[in-house]
Amino acid sequence: MSRGDPTVDPQRVSWLPIPDSSGFPLQNLPYGVFAPPGEMPRVGVAIGEHVLDLAAVAAAGLLDDAADRPAELFAAPSLNRFLAAGSATWGAVRRRVSALLTAGNVDLADRGLDRRALFRQDAVEPRLPCEVGDYVDFYSCLEHATNLGRIMRPHGDPLLPNWRHLPVGYHGRAGTIVVSGTPVRRPLGQQRPADVGAPPRFGPSRMLDFELEVGFLTGPANALGEPIPADRAAEHIFGLVLVNDWSARDIQAWEYQPLGPFLGKSFATSISAWVVPLDALAPFWVPAPTQDPPVEAYLRADGDWALDLQLEVALTPAGADEHVVARTSFRHLYWTLPQQLAHLTSNGATVRPGDLCASGTVSGPTPDSRGSLIELTWGGEQPLVLGDRRRTYLEDGDTVVLRGHCGGGGDAPRIGFGPVRGRILPAEQETT
Amino acid sequence: MSRGDPTVDPQRVSWLPIPDSSGFPLQNLPYGVFAPPGEMPRVGVAIGEHVLDLAAVAAAGLLDDAADRPAELFAAPSLNRFLAAGSATWGAVRRRVSALLTAGNVDLADRGLDRRALFRQDAVEPRLPCEVGDYVDFYSCLEHATNLGRIMRPHGDPLLPNWRHLPVGYHGRAGTIVVSGTPVRRPLGQQRPADVGAPPRFGPSRMLDFELEVGFLTGPANALGEPIPADRAAEHIFGLVLVNDWSARDIQAWEYQPLGPFLGKSFATSISAWVVPLDALAPFWVPAPTQDPPVEAYLRADGDWALDLQLEVALTPAGADEHVVARTSFRHLYWTLPQQLAHLTSNGATVRPGDLCASGTVSGPTPDSRGSLIELTWGGEQPLVLGDRRRTYLEDGDTVVLRGHCGGGGDAPRIGFGPVRGRILPAEQETT
Repeated sequence: MSRGDPTVDPQRVSWLPIPDSSGFPLQNLPYGVFAPPGEMPRVGVAIGEHVLDLAAVAAAGLLDDAADRPAELFAAPSLNRFLAAGSATWGAVRRRVSALLTAGNVDLADRGLDRRALFRQDAVEPRLPCEVGDYVDFYSCLEHATNLGRIMRPHGDPLLPNWRHLPVGYHGRAGTIVVSGTPVRRPLGQQRPADVGAPPRFGPSRMLDFELEVGFLTGPANALGEPIPADRAAEHIFGLVLVNDWSARDIQAWEYQPLGPFLGKSFATSISAWVVPLDALAPFWVPAPTQDPPVEAYLRADGDWALDLQLEVALTPAGADEHVVARTSFRHLYWTLPQQLAHLTSNGATVRPGDLCASGTVSGPTPDSRGSLIELTWGGEQPLVLGDRRRTYLEDGDTVVLRGHCGGGGDAPRIGFGPVRGRILPAEQETT
Repeated sequence: MSRGDPTVDPQRVSWLPIPDSSGFPLQNLPYGVFAPPGEMPRVGVAIGEHVLDLAAVAAAGLLDDAADRPAELFAAPSLNRFLAAGSATWGAVRRRVSALLTAGNVDLADRGLDRRALFRQDAVEPRLPCEVGDYVDFYSCLEHATNLGRIMRPHGDPLLPNWRHLPVGYHGRAGTIVVSGTPVRRPLGQQRPADVGAPPRFGPSRMLDFELEVGFLTGPANALGEPIPADRAAEHIFGLVLVNDWSARDIQAWEYQPLGPFLGKSFATSISAWVVPLDALAPFWVPAPTQDPPVEAYLRADGDWALDLQLEVALTPAGADEHVVARTSFRHLYWTLPQQLAHLTSNGATVRPGDLCASGTVSGPTPDSRGSLIELTWGGEQPLVLGDRRRTYLEDGDTVVLRGHCGGGGDAPRIGFGPVRGRILPAEQETT
């Protein structure tokens, strides 16, 4: 994962033509699960406009030196087995795949795999990259937590007393995590009564929001009762995805006390189809924000753990043009990924291969860098103007796309995250 | 599931000797996963002091009429496939297993399976009955919620405004659910500072508690975006287990605002090894408590949905005698299981086969019927006297056992739940 790693050498080029605008150059090599039409899903690596079928590459014996029983790892319909294999295997497979795709290498061509094992991305169906075991959503962005505190409790301290001492988080619903492109149905739910003593309203959410987040997928499990120290956390982090933690603010506001968000979040969480490995991100770590007060010993990790990842949210009303409504950077995150993982396991809890830990909404310091509508419209008071449309919260037919990339300026190749796309479907007819 | 079902006929007896004190008569037939010494785990049914190996029974062709590809269902190391098969298969397998074990039936004996497929329970290792997808912990007991409200907010209304309108719940950590018998290590964690502005304490929890709960395991999935109506919920409920939702009250108190319980709960949740099928519980449903105010239409389910299940908690300090510290009944639950499932999916969220929904702590109306130490000792103010020991919260070496059964009086056979047993191990040495 050092900057001397040849897999991130900006001079290295592929024999496969890769458009300059692609976020998937040879230095990225993100993993995903895809199904060609009528075929079983398997593991692949995105390269330019194509996906390399690792099941086929493994079946040809080309990964035998890189992993133990590679055909079993990659013919599977999920990344979980590969995630369990650990960082030595991740590194070896990455180096081998990078070599196979580097200009001058003919190993794939010699076996006809430059045709049989390469699919155009737009001709295959992306699947969820792994079965997510547990999904934890943190609340690690100072700007977001401050904004929410100001909107919700305008007369108090915007941050609760615990916020600067630990990365606040909660468990979300793993079973409703969906891959980018999956439509999202507006949820029904109970909402706060208009008057004290009146019955709650039950019906479609009127305050449907997105949340711009970044999440990591975990690798090998720890043993129950044995915390992962912060300075060993990177061994358990495979890679990153973008996350849209769809939120129904009205359902959430009525239900969340005293046990936290539940149905206001659990109807859907969308993630990008391609998992960018930590190894591809090595050139882009920068010092994290100073933490004040200093954190407990169990939360201290050496190294630079803020990621200079540019993020944006685009909103497209049905029949209208796309508008970018927020731009920010993941480098603003107050609590780092190793701190999140160390905290999560500090009580002895296990992580399993394929757990998802999301950052919480990422917002920057300026009004146009806020990662949710409740912040962008300041609790609905300041609607966004999108051409001839206005938005406080999402309307049926709206499409939200999250995008992210590192680098791309100067000689650093652009390391793209796959988009997270979702369109809002009207609520189900009430059946009761 | 009707009371005319021959599998619950109290007159039916087995050819296998079953002690009168057994909670596993022919009318129960709970499912679990077990491993004989040195062998792979597989699905079995508890009967008296034995477990019937369903993988062996299926391999002999004796379940061919009851299920599709039964060998695949039961040779697996989890119940998940069987859970996915649905209520018609559950009923057919139950009727067939009941018939095979009924006095006069020689199908097992003819194949030598009365020896080869029957193991003594004390000679095999119990495993977690299924891979739990998502774990939801509800808060459905009025007495418990009222007690907690009084202890935490002595001057306010003990129930929050939403409590009587919806079954409050949150997601717990599925990956740390363990089977009865697994020791539980005292968690480390941050605890509230002694003074405002002081740093939090980090160390072993000093307020470790149990929670007496009952949970159900789900069967077939619904489609994303399509709620399960309350009156169809029973089709998605396979059976019940006892649940000890271990809780570190000091960690929870510091972390839980605003997003709910997290590390105060996620270090371990213990469940019983045997899943009592809904079909075995048919004789024991009674009318649920009246709900005031009336609930929303989507939460209405016909029928009697409170279960007359007797529960107790026993606490055994190291080297001391066992003391039963609480006795109560599950019939006190305010929110019923169909209401929990209807609410959970009302926003379109899916359940998958093997999700666990727990009730929240079950407490009765009297002081000796409270299902947690925080209630039994009223926030630690009134220690329990156990012989020559006193307890506010759990100490290292304490063993907690939850037990439960239906019936057993008069001519109704006693339908036992397996116990949930856990012993407290000392905290890990702090490594930081």
